[in-house]
Amino acid sequence: MRWIRYSINHQKHYGILEGDRVQQVKGDPFDGYEVEQIFHPLSAVKIEIPVIPKTFYCAGLNYAEHVLEAAKKLGTSPNLPTQADIGYRANNALIAHEETVIIPADATEKIHYEGELVVVIGKTAKHLTMDNALDCVLGYTIGNDVSERTWQKSDRTLWRAKNSDTFKPMGPWIDTNFDPRGATTTVKVNGVVKTVYKTNDMIFDVATFLVAMTRYMTLVPGDVVWMGTDGHSPDLVSGDVVDIEISGLGVLTNPFKRATE
Amino acid sequence: MRWIRYSINHQKHYGILEGDRVQQVKGDPFDGYEVEQIFHPLSAVKIEIPVIPKTFYCAGLNYAEHVLEAAKKLGTSPNLPTQADIGYRANNALIAHEETVIIPADATEKIHYEGELVVVIGKTAKHLTMDNALDCVLGYTIGNDVSERTWQKSDRTLWRAKNSDTFKPMGPWIDTNFDPRGATTTVKVNGVVKTVYKTNDMIFDVATFLVAMTRYMTLVPGDVVWMGTDGHSPDLVSGDVVDIEISGLGVLTNPFKRATE
Repeated sequence: MRWIRYSINHQKHYGILEGDRVQQVKGDPFDGYEVEQIFHPLSAVKIEIPVIPKTFYCAGLNYAEHVLEAAKKLGTSPNLPTQADIGYRANNALIAHEETVIIPADATEKIHYEGELVVVIGKTAKHLTMDNALDCVLGYTIGNDVSERTWQKSDRTLWRAKNSDTFKPMGPWIDTNFDPRGATTTVKVNGVVKTVYKTNDMIFDVATFLVAMTRYMTLVPGDVVWMGTDGHSPDLVSGDVVDIEISGLGVLTNPFKRATE
Repeated sequence: MRWIRYSINHQKHYGILEGDRVQQVKGDPFDGYEVEQIFHPLSAVKIEIPVIPKTFYCAGLNYAEHVLEAAKKLGTSPNLPTQADIGYRANNALIAHEETVIIPADATEKIHYEGELVVVIGKTAKHLTMDNALDCVLGYTIGNDVSERTWQKSDRTLWRAKNSDTFKPMGPWIDTNFDPRGATTTVKVNGVVKTVYKTNDMIFDVATFLVAMTRYMTLVPGDVVWMGTDGHSPDLVSGDVVDIEISGLGVLTNPFKRATE
């Protein structure tokens, strides 16, 4: 089942996507809903961010090749994480499928994509175990953890390097049946494949992160956990279009444009 | 004017606090409200978190003495920030005035308070200038950035060190007339004064942070910005009660209790 959040006639709704048809619901997948006898072709709606996170978690360094590559580029020693320490991103930066990533005018040329699997939490959870960890997951979507590497290196925090407005595309929908095992993440720039990796080839997998996090934190419906990325990105320029495909889940597409001032 | 968020008869409301009396409103201070002819004595309501942040910003190192003291304790060189790089905290950790901070059973004895001024954003804002920066501020409240220093030193991120459930008391209300200039922050443990500092003695003041942040980020109504702390805390133990007073603004009180498992 696929949950889609969309707008039509200036109203936002959740709906259930089947093929190319959206069935509108009253309510939402987190607090309850009723299906309505209202249908739209997918092409007739504007896709919105699938959920506005209560807390926006992000795993950061969670694939070995990406850690080694990042260290090489930053001129530091690679530091493979030894425990599942979760990080954070900011809601101001979220944009939807097909919306435009605006590169700030004073950003350097080091603008990179990071194609990520996103876990969407559906139930309140604390003290999860490896056996029941995935029971709190509503489904999965896709994120692009856009990063300005010069600021990432120079600043004390990741504020503008990763949380400038529009730097966090997420979508297009939430798939409740998706299983990361066996899936492949493929990132294309202007239709040309640039990165391919096994989606589940994480240092700490989804269940391991949820168990670690909920030892100290309560997850609530609407939280999201971005699972990190593998590989590396070329420098993106104004006019580029980035597609992040996770097989069996969908494709998140966003054009990039540099601000002129 | 003081905005208070509270519950009574299992319903949450915003109200306007005058002296010891709360006047209920319909709506909220962010999206609009109407006053109602319903009044409660302050003592009859349960005070709730004054706002659930859209994005929860936190300035981190923003008072010189705290930076120098922290470096000494961590055995590192003091690193006074040279620019206003904002950080983040997590909504899961928020609790209200008089609610209990639960120290996780496996936390070390290095549990510290950080009494902080909190800026509550009331208007959407981007590209603020030093002249108009404060126009987007609805008012101010108080935060306690509770920290487990051993985890802060050992972990790659601040997840459990600063964002364990209950580690972010905020309240008791939002004061729209408060001016940090001339105010004093006083922290007491069990009624004994432990830290006193000038609230506005920041490395980067409120306007400077808002200008820096909104160069890249859009602030929205309901965002909060915690402004950092000065001085240092003794190790807190189960049974301690911490009062953070900011003169002219209020007192945030929270007991601490260690979990037994």
